[in-house]
Amino acid sequence: VSDDIHLGASRSVYWDNDGPAVAYLDQRLLPHAEKQCRAVDVAALIDAIRTLAIRGAPAIGIAGAYGVALIRATVSDIAEQKKQIALLRQARPTAINLAWAVDLASTAEDALAEAMRIHREQIAVDRAIAQHGLQYIPDDARIITHCHTGGVATAGEGTALGVIIAAHRLGRVKHVYVDETRPLLQGARLTLWELMKNGVPATLLIDGAAASLMGRGLIDLAFVGADRIAKNRDTANKIGTYSLAVAAKYHNLPFYVAAPEVTFDPTLPSGDHIHIEERGADELHTIAGQRDGNFTNPAFDVTPSELITAIVTENGSR
Amino acid sequence: VSDDIHLGASRSVYWDNDGPAVAYLDQRLLPHAEKQCRAVDVAALIDAIRTLAIRGAPAIGIAGAYGVALIRATVSDIAEQKKQIALLRQARPTAINLAWAVDLASTAEDALAEAMRIHREQIAVDRAIAQHGLQYIPDDARIITHCHTGGVATAGEGTALGVIIAAHRLGRVKHVYVDETRPLLQGARLTLWELMKNGVPATLLIDGAAASLMGRGLIDLAFVGADRIAKNRDTANKIGTYSLAVAAKYHNLPFYVAAPEVTFDPTLPSGDHIHIEERGADELHTIAGQRDGNFTNPAFDVTPSELITAIVTENGSR
Repeated sequence: VSDDIHLGASRSVYWDNDGPAVAYLDQRLLPHAEKQCRAVDVAALIDAIRTLAIRGAPAIGIAGAYGVALIRATVSDIAEQKKQIALLRQARPTAINLAWAVDLASTAEDALAEAMRIHREQIAVDRAIAQHGLQYIPDDARIITHCHTGGVATAGEGTALGVIIAAHRLGRVKHVYVDETRPLLQGARLTLWELMKNGVPATLLIDGAAASLMGRGLIDLAFVGADRIAKNRDTANKIGTYSLAVAAKYHNLPFYVAAPEVTFDPTLPSGDHIHIEERGADELHTIAGQRDGNFTNPAFDVTPSELITAIVTENGSR
Repeated sequence: VSDDIHLGASRSVYWDNDGPAVAYLDQRLLPHAEKQCRAVDVAALIDAIRTLAIRGAPAIGIAGAYGVALIRATVSDIAEQKKQIALLRQARPTAINLAWAVDLASTAEDALAEAMRIHREQIAVDRAIAQHGLQYIPDDARIITHCHTGGVATAGEGTALGVIIAAHRLGRVKHVYVDETRPLLQGARLTLWELMKNGVPATLLIDGAAASLMGRGLIDLAFVGADRIAKNRDTANKIGTYSLAVAAKYHNLPFYVAAPEVTFDPTLPSGDHIHIEERGADELHTIAGQRDGNFTNPAFDVTPSELITAIVTENGSR
């Protein structure tokens, strides 16, 4: 590890000078094992992103920027570099951060310096989001969250989870309810683990129980992350987010999104234009072992602007 | 197997004269294996009900009635009979059918004859519900359902699923979307399997995707079952039902419940009084393998009357 970047950071993705390589924490193995891996070529990095070893919109952005540096360091042919950069850019389609960071790094004179700048900036962005988000957390707050938006999904302490952890340090958090987040259970595997590591009182539930907990008066507000936000504030995030937002609306609970400014995609007038990744059916049928039949497995959904109370960014609220 | 009861029935639960024993299909093994088991004493039968080898409100009612016959046939001491009947009656708390059927069988002169009457009646009730429910299925209907309400959950062809299958025979069903129904995946394991067996076009989704499909205009109506219904029509059903009902309301889609008349509990003024079974945390953490932390695992939720368009019973609509 080369750099001061990692002071206080999550080590989800970083540059390995001895490689050259992109080092990363394999999030698929959490919480059972904290295994650091190294991608020494872009194919390995793309595989890590596609299979969610590296996941979380900001983290895959940083990985993409380091990936450009890796291509520059390991591939001499310029046409081949371009080809690999194009492949990397589209490793996953929904989160804006990947294409954004790949574009920044690949148009920079020094891709590695640019990747490190993006990385450092994300740590600062996480801190700023946490500070701005605090205004929405009342005393004794009972918060529900979906998927995972903590440190390993970003670079610092997270986006929505960064807000929650900051509020916990101020003694404001009574309880956090964590959607397990089918199909890949990022809530059960990552969010619950990260909250426990930070000493935040938390309870896991199945996604389908969230509305019921709201109906029983156990929830004060929802706080989630985002993968891409259209100009009109329509927000793509992990599948199940929209369901949670609809339930919050029905129960008159505020619904907050936390995301870096880069998550806004100025080229998209509304959420209808956001490309939603459809992932493999195996993510659905591995549990029940039922392999016959039809399956639909959209990885994200779009929550319309009118269901979102505020979007917290590093610059304030939108 | 002793009886004409099984002509056209699902064989989920029946009386084995050669025993005496209560025979049942182990629903935990579906769809991989169709294994018939025999409970030769009440302890085995209670275990089968608790562990969901026998599940579905009507099916556990029938199992309870046969269980009384089994106790009468195998236990001579009257005090011991009473004790075992009381244990059987409370094997699971939320579905009304179990206590209702145990009470009927245990106050009847001939418990076995009464159990067979309840069993036969359920087959007829299934048919009547299917006929009454048809009025709510338009041509080219795209229907979403939650949990499992088919043949093995009842005795005939099911409640909500019975309606859907009857509508399919009339050529009215364009597609059925099936919530996988966490935590125990009755949708993935049972409903998808039963629809495929009946040639009904069906697609499985995670529970959290249902609202998103509604938002994308893919769903026309929801049809689910019930475990207990209060006097004011508030309806307890599998956890996640309420979330689906809230989403249907937000999208202005009709939300139907199908259930036998016995599901109504006249002693309960509203859903607030329905006892909700909290099941073990192991049902949540087995998938992710995350065993630390707090878990909440209510098996049911309550959908308030105002979210329900109609409740279809064997007598018509309520």
